[in-house]
Amino acid sequence: MAKIGLVGGTGALGKAIARRLVMAGHHVTIGSRAADTAKEAALEIGAEGGEMNADAARNKDVVILTVPYSAHASTIAQIKDSVGSGIVVDATVPLVPPKVMRVQLPAAGSAAVEAQNHLPDGVRLVSAFHSVAAHMLISDEQIDCDVLVFSDDVEARQVVIDLCGDMQLRGLSGGVLANSAAAEALTSILIYMNKTYGADGAGIRFTGLTKAPPIS
Amino acid sequence: MAKIGLVGGTGALGKAIARRLVMAGHHVTIGSRAADTAKEAALEIGAEGGEMNADAARNKDVVILTVPYSAHASTIAQIKDSVGSGIVVDATVPLVPPKVMRVQLPAAGSAAVEAQNHLPDGVRLVSAFHSVAAHMLISDEQIDCDVLVFSDDVEARQVVIDLCGDMQLRGLSGGVLANSAAAEALTSILIYMNKTYGADGAGIRFTGLTKAPPIS
Repeated sequence: MAKIGLVGGTGALGKAIARRLVMAGHHVTIGSRAADTAKEAALEIGAEGGEMNADAARNKDVVILTVPYSAHASTIAQIKDSVGSGIVVDATVPLVPPKVMRVQLPAAGSAAVEAQNHLPDGVRLVSAFHSVAAHMLISDEQIDCDVLVFSDDVEARQVVIDLCGDMQLRGLSGGVLANSAAAEALTSILIYMNKTYGADGAGIRFTGLTKAPPIS
Repeated sequence: MAKIGLVGGTGALGKAIARRLVMAGHHVTIGSRAADTAKEAALEIGAEGGEMNADAARNKDVVILTVPYSAHASTIAQIKDSVGSGIVVDATVPLVPPKVMRVQLPAAGSAAVEAQNHLPDGVRLVSAFHSVAAHMLISDEQIDCDVLVFSDDVEARQVVIDLCGDMQLRGLSGGVLANSAAAEALTSILIYMNKTYGADGAGIRFTGLTKAPPIS
């Protein structure tokens, strides 16, 4: 079982991921800008504790970053001195409100590559969890959506794919970190589809894969 | 039934799209850089004729552009004076060989927006057909892949969604033209998945849509 810190873990996605990891038996700490809020969320989902983001990111096997894009740079600044050489999973989607149904990728190509540019060398950065609807993940229901996982570090990527499995999700490798652009862009399409095609959490499934884990 | 010109229609994807449109009863003309090659491809798939690209693009209801990214700008230059105010469907994926499994979107954000920048005002530009495997489309088999269709022109977008239906494909609106970045980026992921997960034409399906056309 891994020691996992959820930075920005009081938001809808962070809490939902944390809850599924807790249920799988992992040691989960919730991080937030305020320790009180973090402790409250930890109590709510049964995590081991709640701390300031920088503390939640320290001495962990895996740190998962779930913040709105507007807080992306400032949150990375909060944790960059504590993550050491651990695995950092960035779930940030570069949405630019109010036009969240419009793909607006940053100049670096993706939020993941922006994170890489601002984290110290040695951090093992992975990008994942963009396309899963938080309100479905917080429930016990089966999620009909694959999770794309990107990293330049093959081993770290596999650790996160395995965590997806622990969370009853099918994680699939999408290749190098720069490929995160595809999943980040796709999230705007899914928000658009929710509105256009009457979905409550549109998702995607990859088809035709003979060597992928089966859909559970 | 529509008059449709397939610019770059002698390639694998162009021929496959043309064949399905012919089978649906549309009036299809194949375009190429050389009229001889175009005539040959037209004969092969039962299209009405083959012509130079500029001629294949003239007086059509719909012009479909299927060329490698390296020929994108030059082909647009060949057709821009003949398309008038017709619907132009761009299927171009901005792959940069040899790293075709790596997302490398152009500075404009997408190949579709590049096309828009180089086509005359008044052209009704749509982007579609990025993620469908040509070698499966040329066959009669059922394709387990949704087709994302993007445009700033809602009516033109619907015309192309309906053409997808004629081709036994499920077309789904993905929103504005700029959102084409998502489908273009996704194509590199599908190529990667073919290799990584033993697929012969990996695809995607959207899930959870209650108001979308059913998968046939």
